Formats: sequence, structure tokens, C-alpha cells
Amino acid sequence: MMKKVLIANRGEIAVRIIRACREMGIETVAVYSEADKEALHTQLADEAVCIGPAPSAESYLSMDKILSATMITGADAIHPGFGFLSENSRFAELCEKCNITFIGPGAEVIEKLGNKSEARNTMISAGVPVIPGSTEPVFDEETGVKEADRIGYPVIVKAALGGGGKGMRVAKTREEFAQEFSTAQKEAKAAFGDDMMYIEHFVEHPRHIEFQILADRYGNVIHLGERDCSIQRNHQKMIEESPSAALGDELRNKMGEAAVKAAKAAHYENAGTIEFLLEKNGNFYFMEMNTRIQVEHPVTEWVTGIDLIKEQIRIASGEKIKIHQDEVKLTGHAIECRINAENPAKNFRPSPGKITDIYLPGGKGVRIDSAIYSGYTVPPYYDSMLAKLIVHAKTRREAINKMKSALGEVIIEGIDTNIDYLYELINHPDYQSGNVDIEFIERL
Amino acid sequence: MMKKVLIANRGEIAVRIIRACREMGIETVAVYSEADKEALHTQLADEAVCIGPAPSAESYLSMDKILSATMITGADAIHPGFGFLSENSRFAELCEKCNITFIGPGAEVIEKLGNKSEARNTMISAGVPVIPGSTEPVFDEETGVKEADRIGYPVIVKAALGGGGKGMRVAKTREEFAQEFSTAQKEAKAAFGDDMMYIEHFVEHPRHIEFQILADRYGNVIHLGERDCSIQRNHQKMIEESPSAALGDELRNKMGEAAVKAAKAAHYENAGTIEFLLEKNGNFYFMEMNTRIQVEHPVTEWVTGIDLIKEQIRIASGEKIKIHQDEVKLTGHAIECRINAENPAKNFRPSPGKITDIYLPGGKGVRIDSAIYSGYTVPPYYDSMLAKLIVHAKTRREAINKMKSALGEVIIEGIDTNIDYLYELINHPDYQSGNVDIEFIERL
Repeated sequence: MMKKVLIANRGEIAVRIIRACREMGIETVAVYSEADKEALHTQLADEAVCIGPAPSAESYLSMDKILSATMITGADAIHPGFGFLSENSRFAELCEKCNITFIGPGAEVIEKLGNKSEARNTMISAGVPVIPGSTEPVFDEETGVKEADRIGYPVIVKAALGGGGKGMRVAKTREEFAQEFSTAQKEAKAAFGDDMMYIEHFVEHPRHIEFQILADRYGNVIHLGERDCSIQRNHQKMIEESPSAALGDELRNKMGEAAVKAAKAAHYENAGTIEFLLEKNGNFYFMEMNTRIQVEHPVTEWVTGIDLIKEQIRIASGEKIKIHQDEVKLTGHAIECRINAENPAKNFRPSPGKITDIYLPGGKGVRIDSAIYSGYTVPPYYDSMLAKLIVHAKTRREAINKMKSALGEVIIEGIDTNIDYLYELINHPDYQSGNVDIEFIERL
Repeated sequence: MMKKVLIANRGEIAVRIIRACREMGIETVAVYSEADKEALHTQLADEAVCIGPAPSAESYLSMDKILSATMITGADAIHPGFGFLSENSRFAELCEKCNITFIGPGAEVIEKLGNKSEARNTMISAGVPVIPGSTEPVFDEETGVKEADRIGYPVIVKAALGGGGKGMRVAKTREEFAQEFSTAQKEAKAAFGDDMMYIEHFVEHPRHIEFQILADRYGNVIHLGERDCSIQRNHQKMIEESPSAALGDELRNKMGEAAVKAAKAAHYENAGTIEFLLEKNGNFYFMEMNTRIQVEHPVTEWVTGIDLIKEQIRIASGEKIKIHQDEVKLTGHAIECRINAENPAKNFRPSPGKITDIYLPGGKGVRIDSAIYSGYTVPPYYDSMLAKLIVHAKTRREAINKMKSALGEVIIEGIDTNIDYLYELINHPDYQSGNVDIEFIERL
């Protein structure tokens, strides 16, 4: 078992990791930027090393400085948290070379899964469903319609070299195909100077369903059920829950098995997440695999009772996973809200500054993961997430009521937050009935 | 189901009850003394009624004022919390007369169980073990030694009309009896003018083990396992946990069955607690039954997943208990520490005053039930308990580590607290090994 862990991160996830280490009797080293001298993670760790100026590139993203801090303090492992260097295969590789345990999968695995087309091919070989798409470049309508017929409608026609929504058209039926293909191709030619097209099945109103997995170096892989992260704004998750209101046991088992297959195919080790798009008809498609702990991991922790950070540390230390798949039960219902320093009325503009007063609720079934305190100044340089409010109750209905009650108690003064906005989302009849997809917020 | 509940209490338990009601969609009325205008319970409830000056007798103990507040606000039920009027049978009776639901057992049951000798007789009839004692007054050594032989050594000889430790002597063996009896009797005569003696089995180094029960008006009674509350100072519990390190499944079942028997014998309804003394040899004896929610109820909530306040409300509303005994499982280990405004170095002198700064930990497996906030002034009139810190983990060992880590994070400035003292208790090798009894703190 490792003796001293350096946490290459900041904010609530750094605090989360420090707590787990302390409970395991492992010493901790925080690294902090000059803007984070007063940060909670800096104060809570056994040791703290300043690694440079506020901009992330000069501190939290500086591999050299972080590796130096690890050497100097004699830490034998690094926990990268999420964001920053957590999915940087080069960093994982440097750790390996320096004989430092990187708490996460190996560099090769990170690289392979980070490459979208390679990840897609791995999943196809493993029999994990991916979004059906054309297998060769399409230049003309005739080939296109054949591919679309094979893939299944609705389809989306995309500029193969494009991006940013240009040269993209949805054809709901075969009848619509010719028109949409022609328009998309013209746009593609105009925007990118190239008329090579790619056709893909269009997943209508999908949910974002992700599966947490744990894998050790001995080939044991288990999944810990799903998280429904459909409540997103500009691909930023705002509310997550487990279990999903859309999954029954049968679909859960099917998707869970696919997730385990995905992890095995990638020769994965440590905690990871397989993200799927779930269609109303129950079809699901692999999107990507995240090779790190997720922001929303607490909802899984609460319904399974498993401490994911401790499992990460045990796995990285070479221990076997002691939990069998059939011991994993999802008990009750957990919901997480991300409380951000931002102003929803001003297009969610970040709102850094000094927190002049703070009151956070507690009590049965309420968990708060945060790194803020009264008098703390939220620096303008980093992510705007201030705290995660997580609740757990017997049923989804009870959990929603608990979240409403808890959100209603939160007081954060001195800066703007999205608390009222979250309260409205939780109160929305479609959210309450579980009738949501990833376009929920767009439609509001 | 009731629509509006008045909470006849203050502090964290009032907040706890308000939260439960809100989650159930029940409106809440707080009552507050003039000293509690800024209290959290006053702020959190839907309505708040001032019921008089700071001294409890003029506010929180004033039945008239509380009943008036109930009438005026149109509340249909009263939750008494713990302390104050919670075990006052007269108050429960007045509620019944005013057609207000008292969330607790009926007045008769409270009265019967509040009378120690009547409670003892009820338990004897029901076959619940009580501490064996002399069945008639003892005036002479000859009768005394016969009774002591029957009861079993060690015995304690007490002045039948006495109290305060005077006229009390322990005889460990028959050989010691004559001497101790004679001394005790002389002391009794001198102190109380009466030489009538009572002889009782002396329970050596017992643990305080209490069982939580739930009972509905349809005769369904279940127990929710035990709480070990052996860490006490002057009969004030400081640390509680569930399950107890001293109980295996067999003893748990046996004591649990006795607890259910006790509740049935008392025709009990609502949540209640049966307190036992547990001897090292596994013998256990009924001490008393508490006819209210307990301070330490969260540890039971965490290992069973059952919300006790919500169950109280459902039972008082006439619902059947929906949980079967064989569904009750104790999962993991929970520990509660009572954080008090007091100075352990000055004989635990209360330390009211303004909290100038506060930081409470959070994260996985950490629950805080409190009614304090930064800038809050702790009034000098009431109990010194500021907050309950409750942790939950897979094993006792992990829970202890989590409690140490969490206690280490707590910051409360402006007043004295017992946090360092609690930390020392948790860190004590005897506590850590589970080798404790109710004299643990005395021996420190």
C-alpha cells in the first residue's frame, strides 16, 4: 500500500481525495498555485507545495513542477483527480518512468481511449454497440442513400472534415434524404472546401447514461450501475442521479455487461466510466470512456455504499477488487446538483469573488463535497464549481423532495450562484416525472 | 396524514424535524423563546411563533403557550423532540383533549413507563430481564444475606429511601456481606433516619446498550438494532455507535426480542428506546424505556436506512409500519459525537457566546445535524450541545478513522468546545479496541 499521495488537483476533488487518504492512514501532499494559497485543499493536506502562478499552464498543468513536488516530498503516488492532467497519457507515462504510481489506468490505455476513432474501433471489435455510421467516404447521393438505408433512419449527414454544426443535416426518412444530403454537401464544400460526407444514425432525444466500472490488474471488472446525466447545459452536466428513471433491471444488466465488455476490451485498470447515449426505444450507443474519477461519482457511492476514491487507491496499490458483481446493489436513489459561481440571468457568466457568508444544510441523506468556507475568495482562474450537493433517499420522489428542501436552505453570499436555477430545474414537472433527455435544458 | 406540525423544541432536533416535514410536504410551525429569535429553527420553519422569555419554564416548557400557538396557527400535530415536554404525560394528555396529534405514545403509556417501579413490574411480568433485587424491605443482616444469596453476588446494598450514593455499599462475595450491610445500614440511618435497605445485583462494568423500536397502533412492533452509548460522562452520553462492538447476531436477536417484548407489554406506540445494561458475561437488564426520539437516533438511521422522524410522523398519522423485522439489516458502522459548547479543561463548564467562525466537514459518510451558523450566538439558557457529527463506513475501524479525520477538520471559533476532548476519546486504545463500559470516562 502506498504511504504518501500527492494530489495533482485543487478544489473539492482535492479535498475529497485528501479525506480518503487520511481515513486510510496515507499521508497527503497538496500542490497549489499562488492563487490557491488560502484554498481548503492547501490547508487540509499534511504537506503543501506551491507550484507556480495562477494560470493552470504554469501550475496545475505543469508536469515538471508536479513531478518535482512529488520527488521533493517523497510521495510515492499521484492522484490526478479530474480535469487538468487526469487524462493526459504523457503525464501518466512520465509517472511510470519516474517510478511514481499514477492512480488511474496506464498511459497506453489512456491514449487509446482518448483517440475517438481508435476507441470506437475497439468497441466495435468487442461487440459494444456504437452509433452506426458509414464505413467509407460518401461523395454522392446514390451511395449515401444506400448507406442511410443500411444504418437506419433518422440519419445525420455531416461534412467528414467539418465541425461546428456546418454541413450537418438530419434526414428523418428516405424521402427527405436527397434534399438534406444535397444541402449538407453544398454547405460542406462552401465551408471546408471538401465535399466528402459522413452519414451516421441520428440518436433522437437521447439520455446520457454512464456506467461506473472498476477494474483491477488481475482482469476482474465490475460495474456499479449507471448515472443519468441528461441534465446538461452546453455539454456541462448540472444534475446527475443514480439509478436512472429510464432503466429497469433488464436494461441495466444489458448496459452494465456492455460496460464491462468495453473495459475488458480496453484492458482497463482502475475506476472508469463508459458513457452511452440511450434512445427512447432502449437502444444504446457507446460515446466515450472517461479514464478518471468523475465529478458525479458520489451518486454511485451513495447507492452502492462503495468508496470510489479508496477503491482507486487500492487498485493502484495492486490489490484485487474484493467486491463481486452480484454483491453490487443499488439501494435507494441519489441526486447530485452542481453549485456553481455563475449568474444564470447573465448567460451563466462566472462570478468569482469573496464569499462573505455561507450556510450549507446537513442532516439525514445530505452530503456536501466542497472546498469553500466563509471568507474564502473564489479565484477567477478555474472552474466555477463551488460545491456538490448530494442527497439520498429511499425513492426518487423522496430524493427530489430532499434536494428541494436542501437547496432551499443553502446560503452563499458575496457572489452569484446557480442555486435558484437548480431549484427550478428540480421543480420542473418533466424532471420530476423523469421525462428528460440531453436537450431538456435547451428546451426550457 | 397531518398537514401542519408544530415543533415544540429548539436547536438541532427542531431543525431535524422541520427538514423531515418539509420533505414529506407537511407545513411546519416553529416556536421560539425571546432568546431564540435568530435561531436556525426559527428561520427555517414555514411559520414561527414567539412563546415567551428565555427561561424554559416560560417558553419551551409552557404547555399553555405551546397549545395556544398550535391553535392559532392551525397546526394539527405537535412533535415534542427530546427533552422539554417530550416525556410529559400531562402534555400528551392535553394534546389529546385539544384534538391535536401528539407525535409520540399516548399519555397513559408515557406515565406508566415514566414510573420506574411500575415500568420494572411491567417488564418482570413480560419476562424482560431486570436487575434482580430484594422483593421486600430488608432490615437485618440475616434476611439480607438470604436475599443476596438468591440474587447472586456481587450485590449492592442501598438505603431504600436514599439517594446520592449515601448508604450504598457493594459486597462482592458472601464473606463481605455482613460488613458492608452493616456499614450501609448505619450510613442510611444517619443520612435518612431510616434503616430500611434494598439489595440489588451489582452489574459490574456494564455497557449501556439501547434498542430502538418502532410500534404502530395495530400491534406491529419491530426493533432496529442497538446503539452502544457506553461513553458517558456523568450519565451524559458523548459518543454513540451502532452496531455495538460487544454484540454478535445471537445476543442482538435475544436483546432485540426482549425489546420488542418490552414495547408490546407496555402497549407502546411510536418510536421508543429500551435501555439495557449489558454485563460482560452477556447478561442484560432492563433499565428504562424512553418514550421519545433520542439524540443519538442518527446512528440507527444510518445503519438501517430508516428515517426515524418520518416513521414517527407516519405512525402518529395512523399508518401501519411497512417494514418487516427480517428486512431490517444493520449495514456498516455508524458513530456519533456530540459537539458541545463547553470547556473540558474547566470541568466542562458551558461556554455560550458568539460563534465568530465555523467550518464543518462534509464528504462521503459524514452527516452533521446542527443548528449553528457563523455569527450565531449560543444562548446560555439551554443545553450546550451545538452539533452532532455522525459518520458511517463499512467497518468500525473505518468509521473511527473517518470520525478522527472529520473531527480534525471542525473549526468553531469564539466559544470553547469539546472537540479536542472527543478526538482524544476516539483515539484512546480502549475505545478503538471496543473495550469500553460506562465507567470508561471516569477511569481516564
